[in-house]
Amino acid sequence: MSDLQALASQVKSAAKVLALTEATQKNNALHAIAKALRAGCTQILAANEADLENARQNGMSSAMLDRLKLNEARVDSMADGVEALCELPDPVGIELASFSRPNGLLIRKVSVPLGVVGIIYEARPNVTADAAAICLKSGNAVLLRGGKEAIHSNTAIVECMQKAIKTEGLPADCIGLVTDTTRASSEAMMRLNGYLDVLIPRGGAGLIRAVVQNATVPVIETGTGNCHIYVDKTADIDMAASITYNAKVSRPSVCNAAETLLVHSGIAERALPVIAKKLISGGVTLHTCARAQAILAGVCDTIPATESDWQTEYLDYEMAVKIVDSFAEAVAHIGQYGTSHSECIVTSDPARGARFQREVDAAAVYVNASTRFTDGGQFGFGAEIGISTQKLHARGPMGLRELTSYRYLIDGNGQIRE
Amino acid sequence: MSDLQALASQVKSAAKVLALTEATQKNNALHAIAKALRAGCTQILAANEADLENARQNGMSSAMLDRLKLNEARVDSMADGVEALCELPDPVGIELASFSRPNGLLIRKVSVPLGVVGIIYEARPNVTADAAAICLKSGNAVLLRGGKEAIHSNTAIVECMQKAIKTEGLPADCIGLVTDTTRASSEAMMRLNGYLDVLIPRGGAGLIRAVVQNATVPVIETGTGNCHIYVDKTADIDMAASITYNAKVSRPSVCNAAETLLVHSGIAERALPVIAKKLISGGVTLHTCARAQAILAGVCDTIPATESDWQTEYLDYEMAVKIVDSFAEAVAHIGQYGTSHSECIVTSDPARGARFQREVDAAAVYVNASTRFTDGGQFGFGAEIGISTQKLHARGPMGLRELTSYRYLIDGNGQIRE
Repeated sequence: MSDLQALASQVKSAAKVLALTEATQKNNALHAIAKALRAGCTQILAANEADLENARQNGMSSAMLDRLKLNEARVDSMADGVEALCELPDPVGIELASFSRPNGLLIRKVSVPLGVVGIIYEARPNVTADAAAICLKSGNAVLLRGGKEAIHSNTAIVECMQKAIKTEGLPADCIGLVTDTTRASSEAMMRLNGYLDVLIPRGGAGLIRAVVQNATVPVIETGTGNCHIYVDKTADIDMAASITYNAKVSRPSVCNAAETLLVHSGIAERALPVIAKKLISGGVTLHTCARAQAILAGVCDTIPATESDWQTEYLDYEMAVKIVDSFAEAVAHIGQYGTSHSECIVTSDPARGARFQREVDAAAVYVNASTRFTDGGQFGFGAEIGISTQKLHARGPMGLRELTSYRYLIDGNGQIRE
Repeated sequence: MSDLQALASQVKSAAKVLALTEATQKNNALHAIAKALRAGCTQILAANEADLENARQNGMSSAMLDRLKLNEARVDSMADGVEALCELPDPVGIELASFSRPNGLLIRKVSVPLGVVGIIYEARPNVTADAAAICLKSGNAVLLRGGKEAIHSNTAIVECMQKAIKTEGLPADCIGLVTDTTRASSEAMMRLNGYLDVLIPRGGAGLIRAVVQNATVPVIETGTGNCHIYVDKTADIDMAASITYNAKVSRPSVCNAAETLLVHSGIAERALPVIAKKLISGGVTLHTCARAQAILAGVCDTIPATESDWQTEYLDYEMAVKIVDSFAEAVAHIGQYGTSHSECIVTSDPARGARFQREVDAAAVYVNASTRFTDGGQFGFGAEIGISTQKLHARGPMGLRELTSYRYLIDGNGQIRE
């Protein structure tokens, strides 16, 4: 048995205890974690400083350094996040259905934790506390494997959390951390069949692809969002400009940001200059089809779009723009290039809105609202472990409920099958 | 693009049409399939005879030949199964939840088909019609890949079904068949990312392992059932004998058959001889621990059990028997050796039944009823695509509902995120 298997085995044993733990004890453990994170802030920041020092020496970019960096406010915010979970209803033990059969069997379908959740992520140490806490609340043990850049921070945070849950009578191994940050350990984790009930990658496209390609355990694919705003000929132009601006500029680096703007030719002459000016004012570079470029001549500079622009998730202040001649062309474009994450139509015709929602297959299909709302917090889930872009198990924002499975409990009085 | 990708791409296009097809049209197509299977019986049986002839020449076992063999009654029964689906409620378009947010957004969660379901199976041609029909009913296109032994039968059945659905206005490619039955085509199918939304293996342990190990598309693991009957000290002995006999003997070759009998030492002297005699009368060979063997001395012959017996899914007229000294020991044994499929306690104490259901983590946990009830038909689902032994997405019998995903449809009036 490898070190990783030994660790996973301990986490699996802890999962069995945690699955039978009552809500009150889990909430007490979460409160204890929050308190411990605040009390341990000095040690956590010292560990984080060691990571930052290594990162600077290795020439890490300033954007990456910012993600890696913790300070008192960020640790406090981690603790707040953990505490907020206590207020949420327990997702375990809920009777999802109940039915009797003609032979007298009573069948109840009851929610249970998944068991052991694996999380592979990169250099953001706040994921360590977030993911561990949401797993604990949902009765799941967690096996965390963060990037090597954050290993000191992650170790300090996990030690802090483990001590806290032990004082509340839970096994420390409810929260496991893989401290071997070699590529080999990552690949071995993807093949921990029999130990991991699900593996969730959180990070960039490269990480997610590696997990999908290499994992033999069940995976929930997250993250890739090539999202569109379709401005129909029936759109309110100001609303279209406001939604497009928000969907692109409010936070370009996230998966629910819009990447391509589709505009119906019946409104493009009037709408596109208004929308484009607003985007430009937000610092956005436009990659336009020839017709959009012609309409915007004299309004702003644009870059000619190529096939690859329709496929690109920029995650930056860049947006592709295309004129379409029909509703059907917009839906077909989204069907071809979209990643089934979040799609939006702007229209003042409810029938066209409903048709868009019927014909576009994505986790979240919006009529007259920004794609940026695809988020567990915005949906009211209270917490989020990630946004699924697959159809199996969960789609879109995953909260506590999406971290559960179910069992059938059957009561009989001697029934046998004929 | 390989031939397989080209086929998968056509099936994916058909899936988009099928997802938007109303229930009536899908039911009409199912009726047409049933009619066509009956009308095409002669051709199907001729094709099947070609498969049987090859199989005989290749020395296939008689059990395998029986699975491969079709006759008029079996084709009729396939058609009956397809027709029965028409009576079931449509699982697509159901509003699973609806909630408004403080900013006025209305969020609805609505069931949708998964998209394209891949099925890899062995030499049972009845799976071809069953799986295609249940997928069609749930709005999913299907990519079928049966064993090479059944290729003539499968081709005839699929051609028959494709013609039928075309007459009802559906694309023939809603039902795709992989006719290349090499191992390479099977492995390529496991890696059809972007085409398959889920892959479900139906067959023996070797097939399932190959899919889990090689697939990069989402998989639902099915089938392995190392199921236990635990006869508690509080059990009614006649009921224990009846349930154990049924769980083992009614159909030993299936995954919900019991493999190990655990008997509490407080009742073993009285209960075990009764249960063992009944099992022996059904032709069962017992693999017993030393204490069970001592109790059964003079009652019947037994084989000494070894560690491997606790791990074995016999799928045959064989059963492992172990005496346990406590409820906790029974639960621990099941936790260690069980495959989380179906587990049963026989007890006359409701509190001990409830405790068993709380502490045993399996898809179906029975109090006083045979494990053989873990089945979509027995649960009242009306149809079954398989029995999941994983926790992600679906657990236990999977019916129409388990072949759906969901979308969030969000209606706004210009909301943007702050």
